[in-house]
Amino acid sequence: MQPDLHSRTTTAHTLHHFRTRSPLVHCMTNDVVQSFTANVLLALGASPAMVIDVQEAAQFAAIADALLINVGTLTDERAQAMRAAVISANAAQKPWTLDPVAVGALTLRSRFCHDLLPLRPATIRGNASEILALAGISGGGRGVDTTDTALAALPGAQRLASDTSAIVVVTGEVDYVTNGTRTVAVTGGDTLMTRVVGTGCALSAVVAACCSLPGDRLDNVASACAFIKLAGCKAAQHSAGPGSFIPAFVDALWALEGEVQA
Amino acid sequence: MQPDLHSRTTTAHTLHHFRTRSPLVHCMTNDVVQSFTANVLLALGASPAMVIDVQEAAQFAAIADALLINVGTLTDERAQAMRAAVISANAAQKPWTLDPVAVGALTLRSRFCHDLLPLRPATIRGNASEILALAGISGGGRGVDTTDTALAALPGAQRLASDTSAIVVVTGEVDYVTNGTRTVAVTGGDTLMTRVVGTGCALSAVVAACCSLPGDRLDNVASACAFIKLAGCKAAQHSAGPGSFIPAFVDALWALEGEVQA
Amino acid sequence: MQPDLHSRTTTAHTLHHFRTRSPLVHCMTNDVVQSFTANVLLALGASPAMVIDVQEAAQFAAIADALLINVGTLTDERAQAMRAAVISANAAQKPWTLDPVAVGALTLRSRFCHDLLPLRPATIRGNASEILALAGISGGGRGVDTTDTALAALPGAQRLASDTSAIVVVTGEVDYVTNGTRTVAVTGGDTLMTRVVGTGCALSAVVAACCSLPGDRLDNVASACAFIKLAGCKAAQHSAGPGSFIPAFVDALWALEGEVQA
Repeated sequence: MQPDLHSRTTTAHTLHHFRTRSPLVHCMTNDVVQSFTANVLLALGASPAMVIDVQEAAQFAAIADALLINVGTLTDERAQAMRAAVISANAAQKPWTLDPVAVGALTLRSRFCHDLLPLRPATIRGNASEILALAGISGGGRGVDTTDTALAALPGAQRLASDTSAIVVVTGEVDYVTNGTRTVAVTGGDTLMTRVVGTGCALSAVVAACCSLPGDRLDNVASACAFIKLAGCKAAQHSAGPGSFIPAFVDALWALEGEVQA
Repeated sequence: MQPDLHSRTTTAHTLHHFRTRSPLVHCMTNDVVQSFTANVLLALGASPAMVIDVQEAAQFAAIADALLINVGTLTDERAQAMRAAVISANAAQKPWTLDPVAVGALTLRSRFCHDLLPLRPATIRGNASEILALAGISGGGRGVDTTDTALAALPGAQRLASDTSAIVVVTGEVDYVTNGTRTVAVTGGDTLMTRVVGTGCALSAVVAACCSLPGDRLDNVASACAFIKLAGCKAAQHSAGPGSFIPAFVDALWALEGEVQA
Repeated sequence: MQPDLHSRTTTAHTLHHFRTRSPLVHCMTNDVVQSFTANVLLALGASPAMVIDVQEAAQFAAIADALLINVGTLTDERAQAMRAAVISANAAQKPWTLDPVAVGALTLRSRFCHDLLPLRPATIRGNASEILALAGISGGGRGVDTTDTALAALPGAQRLASDTSAIVVVTGEVDYVTNGTRTVAVTGGDTLMTRVVGTGCALSAVVAACCSLPGDRLDNVASACAFIKLAGCKAAQHSAGPGSFIPAFVDALWALEGEVQA
């Protein structure tokens, strides 16, 4: 089963919906990427909000258009608040997205992520090692970095999608987006993105936002990957290293309209 | 009662005091804007410090020149530490500033902010929805964004100022600074500032710092608004989007002397 | 005892090891500098990971190549997790580095840092006030800023090194690196670095990474100081203020090879 290549037309379509709807995204994410994640969502036209208290998180997940759960700096207390938010999002029929950072290697987050799977995530976004660990195939990578390629993890991603009914995104040099039966490939980007903290985490936030848009969810999620790949490619051309890449990347997301048409 | 327009002369005067005194600002702020807030204060010549443990926060609030309380990512534990810091600041006669992020919509922060009002904040800084919610007039905005204009919230701001004896700042396209009887308007800025996370939160930190300066407090607080508006306007002219806006904005704060004279 | 000047040859040697080994650095650092610290490590070629739960921190400290403990925003809960990580790092014979931010002035962190000293840190990195406070000579600075010069703190640093068997780094206009008997001086840098939050904290993370490299530890740690001084000097030449300094600094770390040869 050869993956389809995600089209520019679909990307443009999703971008139009994104900018028009300005989704309110409840981000429960790790301590390292909060500011970058918010700025990425703002540049694309979304409205980010980070609410973390257990009671407030449950309240806010029902108000927001989408919820992101990223376990990068999980604690027991944060896990409790995340679970309350997920249950509330489900009750309000709002989609939630899981970013299982470094799952596999560490006990608390591994147990927590596995416990969340029956709560019907709309999308799961991880690197190859994370997706393989979550699919029960391998033990996870070296810290937050992957030790596998996205293509090698594709069968695991497809199985995980079938088992959970979630869209699964496995990211790498090429991103693969699958629902278990249909798979779309998204190319582009630049290796400089791996030298900047939070590009994967920010993608997950954009994926979460895209899950709230009308139309086919798999296509919308693949468009989220395309936004990041397109902006990353353009930013790499206009930067002297990972430091100047960051403002260039956010500017490129802001100016994405033209890039998508090109 | 027509608001006065804040003058460049007063702004220059406050800036001179700011750079000369280099206020030590104890920032108890949300997880998203910590780094940006610190860099904004440093660029202006202040000395920021983030101290959050309940015991240490009480100790440090008495040492610092000013205290900022921002409830963006409030938790029960953080609320306890903030309250201890406020009580300690009051005992040491140090001014404290409240930024009631997203008050109204969410229970924990709404109760906490209302409980803090009798503890005599020097200044309260919020957007229109937040000020209206705190004044007991409406139920708060959509997440952290405002659904009202600053001018529409001015009567609420004036009432809140009268009720609490605090300076109240309601920010928007025009910022209004009021003590209930006198109101000053601060113009400038750029809409790009709404596409960067933390510009409002950073303003609150600068407001907190300005509350420690000699001279008329209302004028000093209006100058804080002017610093941010002037730097925001200049940065918008020198940036290609919200990504390059951030370094340009911090640079503009650093170089503010010339802008203020202009 | 006149300090030796650290050589470019040694710096180049350490940089080569750094880029080849790509150390996995477990950063338990303060809330303000997480993103900047991660980006500094990534630009140099290291692999940062922030893991904070008490159980996961103990697990991860044994997997990582090096551990950083920075007490800038310490809480009781964070202190417990840090102690577990230190014990685990020691058991796995992995080096750990202490950044005693604002030690002396505040009770929780002062007690915590003193309690950690018998647990054999590989390196301690602080400004003059912090090193003097930790050596039991003075009461600490004004918040996170130093009120002493690095040279004045050198005898205290040497005594602290002898007492703890750690390498001690006292940073300022000139950085001094000492094991109590041999002392190396590292010059360079720019005063603009004091107007950007986290340059000292990021240095501590690079110091932690360098402790995991082969060769003489004192030389490796002095090279960490040289990386930051060289990049800071170059970035200051290419920036208009502290805002544009940040991307220029990270780019300079990324391109460090050439600078070191020069």
